[in-house]
Amino acid sequence: MSYDRARARTILDRARNEGRTSLSPDDSAAVCAAYNIPIPPQALASSASDAARIAGEIGYPVALKISSVDILHKTEAGGVALNLADAKAVEAAYEKLLVQARAYKADAKFDGVLVQKMAGGGVELIVGALSDPSFGKVVALGIGGVMVEVMGEVTFRLAPVTAAEARSMLDSIRGKEILAGVRGGPAANRDALAGLIENISHLVEDFPEVAEVDLNPVFASPSRAIAADVRILLDFAPSQERYRPRRDEIKRAMNRIMCPESIAIIGASAEDGKIGNSVLKNLVNGGYQGRILPINPSLDAIFGIKAFRSIKDVPGDVDVAVFAIPARLVAKVLPECGEKHVAGAVLIPSGFAETGNVDLEREALDVARRNNIRLMGPNIYGFYYTPMNLCATFCTPYNVRGKVALSSQSGGVGMAILGFSRSSKMGVSAIVGLGNKADLDEDDLLTFFEDDPHTDVVAMHVEDLKDGRSFAEVAKRVSAKKPVIVLKAGRTSAGARAARSHTAALAGNDRVYDDVLKQSGVVRAYSLNDMLEFARCLPLLPQPQGENVLIITGAGGSGVLLADACVDNGLTLMTMPTDLDQAFRKFIPPFGAAGNPVDITGGEPPSTYQNTIRLGLNDPRVHALVLGYWHTIITPPMVFARLAAEVVEEQRRKGIDKPVVASLVGDIEVEEACRYLFERRIPAYPYTTEKPVAVLGAKYRWARGAALI
Amino acid sequence: MSYDRARARTILDRARNEGRTSLSPDDSAAVCAAYNIPIPPQALASSASDAARIAGEIGYPVALKISSVDILHKTEAGGVALNLADAKAVEAAYEKLLVQARAYKADAKFDGVLVQKMAGGGVELIVGALSDPSFGKVVALGIGGVMVEVMGEVTFRLAPVTAAEARSMLDSIRGKEILAGVRGGPAANRDALAGLIENISHLVEDFPEVAEVDLNPVFASPSRAIAADVRILLDFAPSQERYRPRRDEIKRAMNRIMCPESIAIIGASAEDGKIGNSVLKNLVNGGYQGRILPINPSLDAIFGIKAFRSIKDVPGDVDVAVFAIPARLVAKVLPECGEKHVAGAVLIPSGFAETGNVDLEREALDVARRNNIRLMGPNIYGFYYTPMNLCATFCTPYNVRGKVALSSQSGGVGMAILGFSRSSKMGVSAIVGLGNKADLDEDDLLTFFEDDPHTDVVAMHVEDLKDGRSFAEVAKRVSAKKPVIVLKAGRTSAGARAARSHTAALAGNDRVYDDVLKQSGVVRAYSLNDMLEFARCLPLLPQPQGENVLIITGAGGSGVLLADACVDNGLTLMTMPTDLDQAFRKFIPPFGAAGNPVDITGGEPPSTYQNTIRLGLNDPRVHALVLGYWHTIITPPMVFARLAAEVVEEQRRKGIDKPVVASLVGDIEVEEACRYLFERRIPAYPYTTEKPVAVLGAKYRWARGAALI
Repeated sequence: MSYDRARARTILDRARNEGRTSLSPDDSAAVCAAYNIPIPPQALASSASDAARIAGEIGYPVALKISSVDILHKTEAGGVALNLADAKAVEAAYEKLLVQARAYKADAKFDGVLVQKMAGGGVELIVGALSDPSFGKVVALGIGGVMVEVMGEVTFRLAPVTAAEARSMLDSIRGKEILAGVRGGPAANRDALAGLIENISHLVEDFPEVAEVDLNPVFASPSRAIAADVRILLDFAPSQERYRPRRDEIKRAMNRIMCPESIAIIGASAEDGKIGNSVLKNLVNGGYQGRILPINPSLDAIFGIKAFRSIKDVPGDVDVAVFAIPARLVAKVLPECGEKHVAGAVLIPSGFAETGNVDLEREALDVARRNNIRLMGPNIYGFYYTPMNLCATFCTPYNVRGKVALSSQSGGVGMAILGFSRSSKMGVSAIVGLGNKADLDEDDLLTFFEDDPHTDVVAMHVEDLKDGRSFAEVAKRVSAKKPVIVLKAGRTSAGARAARSHTAALAGNDRVYDDVLKQSGVVRAYSLNDMLEFARCLPLLPQPQGENVLIITGAGGSGVLLADACVDNGLTLMTMPTDLDQAFRKFIPPFGAAGNPVDITGGEPPSTYQNTIRLGLNDPRVHALVLGYWHTIITPPMVFARLAAEVVEEQRRKGIDKPVVASLVGDIEVEEACRYLFERRIPAYPYTTEKPVAVLGAKYRWARGAALI
Repeated sequence: MSYDRARARTILDRARNEGRTSLSPDDSAAVCAAYNIPIPPQALASSASDAARIAGEIGYPVALKISSVDILHKTEAGGVALNLADAKAVEAAYEKLLVQARAYKADAKFDGVLVQKMAGGGVELIVGALSDPSFGKVVALGIGGVMVEVMGEVTFRLAPVTAAEARSMLDSIRGKEILAGVRGGPAANRDALAGLIENISHLVEDFPEVAEVDLNPVFASPSRAIAADVRILLDFAPSQERYRPRRDEIKRAMNRIMCPESIAIIGASAEDGKIGNSVLKNLVNGGYQGRILPINPSLDAIFGIKAFRSIKDVPGDVDVAVFAIPARLVAKVLPECGEKHVAGAVLIPSGFAETGNVDLEREALDVARRNNIRLMGPNIYGFYYTPMNLCATFCTPYNVRGKVALSSQSGGVGMAILGFSRSSKMGVSAIVGLGNKADLDEDDLLTFFEDDPHTDVVAMHVEDLKDGRSFAEVAKRVSAKKPVIVLKAGRTSAGARAARSHTAALAGNDRVYDDVLKQSGVVRAYSLNDMLEFARCLPLLPQPQGENVLIITGAGGSGVLLADACVDNGLTLMTMPTDLDQAFRKFIPPFGAAGNPVDITGGEPPSTYQNTIRLGLNDPRVHALVLGYWHTIITPPMVFARLAAEVVEEQRRKGIDKPVVASLVGDIEVEEACRYLFERRIPAYPYTTEKPVAVLGAKYRWARGAALI
């Protein structure tokens, strides 16, 4: 698409000079023309007779719309007349509109009355663009009328969008079936609609001062998509760009921070219960093999480790400085860290922006920038990186190594991560506290984890994204390689209010988050426990090779619930091919149920489980298995667990590795059986039919987002 | 409302005689008139000139609609012309309609063309009635157009409805805001709309043969609600009434079954591993104090207990007979049970309808009816009733007494109930297997649990309701006294298909279930684990006295997630009164967050938790507390648990007993703390912010359904 940028530039510059916050109808029309956004023929009339003359020129029927910067909702103001068929009707409507609009707002300033050729016919939609506090310019699409007005059903994408992204929006809206025509009505022209979205996205991208564009309604017919009403709002205040080092700079700093050769503890203490004491102990007891450098103005050694009065006294450079001193002292010590070329300062202390001390945080950040130091926190528990045996935290040490990296913006959630990990024996590569995120944030972490051979999946608790656009960019790249799971807190308006009072972060519109995260390939978790279980299970599950999920169950009742859960989690229950159905029937009793779920019935011996699971794994048309086990005397829990693991491992040796999850219903022995299965990379849960399917669903969401299936 | 039933009767009788499956437009109009259902003036025309004549009589503008029993979707067939302004237009439209309709369906039979005064204007809705396989006659309401067509957003009620119930439907539909007028448009007349629903509900109630009524569209304006199109479908096949004894009969039988003085085990066995052996052992080892009567044709005694060749040999009457013999023998033995006046036969064996042997099940039921025996099952694990130390099952015994009664239609889910109960130390009064539900079903159980002093809450796993209407009636009565929780399996179409293959039960439309269960005061659980956790927690939580929920949290991050969970679960976050806010501020640091959640911050000593929890409990404006604990060195998990329990118990002693739930985030010590709190009636969960709020939400849903708040 080529756009007439110069024309739009001229109009916007004039609007700026005139101090306008929105464009007049004429200017809006000109901008639309410059960006190939079709609108009906129209002109502004200054009198009733003028309106009739214009109508005669552009052709009947026409609509009349009051034009005033002071009236945003023209219909409510009685400022709209539709379907006017002749000059008499136009003149009468002109006068009536003015009277009604004045009654609605006596002091409103009027540009005149817009005369517009009726554009109706086709599907009514809303297309728009706005500036999101986290993500910047985004475009929006919704079905018009009740769907948007009452239901708020809108889908978003980051601007600018490609034609393919614009088309994907047409498939993302609830009620999208209407685009294909309803009750035999005509379908909307998808290309025209996608083109409209694409053009609007370039307009707001090209001109940051275009804060909001509202095309409402847009009528999409088989031949075109035309915007019957256009509103363009302006904001000339410069937007603040968040600091973004180059990717190689981020990587260099993050590598030094996560894999340091030396760590200084500013405020190391010999006194039990002090944070500077706990951090030092954890570094030592955790088994960190690099240089540990306690910094304390009055001690020569702590726990037999040589201490320094100042970091400046340390010979050579230092990679990381963990701060365990009061907030007000941080900015004073940072320059000394700069002298020692510290790559990252881990700011444990609270008392910054989260308690209202915004300036103190700002000051620390400024000093850090000047000294080329990245800041982690402040207001955090620190971080763990198990490949280095590194526990740079005041919490208890953690040493179960694994492939899961987690981060949290809140210390409480960090403690939940720690407890859950220990309880479920989840192997982790890293647990990182991000706190106020004065500087380092999720995209910095992702940039490190992207190439970290010790990390296979990243799970992040997020209250706000300071720079959602950068996050989306990095997450898209990373999630193509390894799953990125995000728990976005403050989903609801009440939650968002709580988030604001907590971190002074402006929680973005959750629908924008939802759409952008999905587009970035991120697996969104909607609850804390889901985030934790997804993190635990996704590295265990192999990548699915297709959408066909098969349920094999000993309990018909579980089969029903597992099928419900598959639908809830967007999984596709394989349509059972006749030959495979016949093959299964050889193993199950004649009254076992056909199709999917395969109901092997409860009275069956271990061999039936074994044979059917093997069959499911062996058939290339089956891509994932959901097992429903039912505790019976004939096949007790541990017998099932051993045989299921045996068959799965036998197939893995043959190179067949499909995702297998299991729901075990039975007496408490099923708990041990679940542990046994988990240790063999088969996520298995007792007393729930939902959780195992939810983790399988999360794996599928990732694979789809990464375009692997 | 008075209706002209005689007139409707005449029309329907004629339709029956004519073998019609739907009413003609004239007959539909007459039935509508008889039931005060407003439709526009209309008449059937047999020629173009006839149409013009009729239009002249009823007044322009008019609509023309093809009338044919063979064409259901008139618009798709090109069989509708709207807004015709004069005779010429009517005549032209008449011919065009016929041509189009014939092109659509060449062999369609035409009654003629309906000429109808245009009824448009106002909000477009759909009102209807249908016969649901589980619930019988139900009425439906939805916003017209896309909302119903594409989104399927409809609300249902059992017919007949009261005026109040009809009005409640207006508040239940998604998009209901449109009824109040959109963009300043006029509001719909709620009374007229409710009246229309009420009338239609009586029509289908009065005439069972009216299988379906479709008023689509209905236009509701400020002055009226009028049905622009009416379709009435007929089905003269008599509906099958399910067997329903009188309530006192049910109670008498159920009391004898659940609290028997004697139990015979048909097929008692001395051989380990046999079901008849397990049942006998469980009865003995479970500590059942009534007469245990092993029935075995070839043994004199089992485990030293006198055995009988036949139940007929037992002296005196017998209350319950547990069947542990093959399915094909059941019907043969039932008459002998009849002779001993057995109240209930517990049919453990499978091999009935679930394996296709529908006749065998039918036969057993017929014999049982003739012998006045109620059947539990078949195809079940049996049942437990702990107040009697009664384990009439082949599963392992269970003896943790408590106030929760549970039932399941599936054996697998029954085993999940058992394992979960044991693992969580959930006290139960009863666990009952219902299996195929040949006879006894959920409403029989509810009728017993209703007056059972040992039961405070009932949780049921349901795959289908054989008689949803009776269930709704009983559930409504019972849930006013104690919570009834239902997990409906087969919610999704895939799940429903699985349910059909499992129990041959036709899963009803899930939206009908959802609405009717809600109207009956039932707390619906949407997952197995939720059902179990709700069952466990609801008896622990006191009844809330109002809607104000307050979150007190040590972790701001948890506070955000807890607030999200409150919204997800329909809870109201209390708006913090200024004086109470001030009172809280006395206890928390100056940077702790104001409002709700009360964020006491993580660095606080035990006394801060103690003081704030006490304040929340003491203030009468606060009705429930959600506690968010964060593991810190200053306040370790068990310290928190003890102090929280102490404050709650101190207030209980003073007569203040409010629902309190807790989310504990921290290292694994929080698990012990949760157990400690649970034992003191404070539902508490580690590593999740969702579950404690979900159980509080369930308690609130119950209290609202029972009109207690």
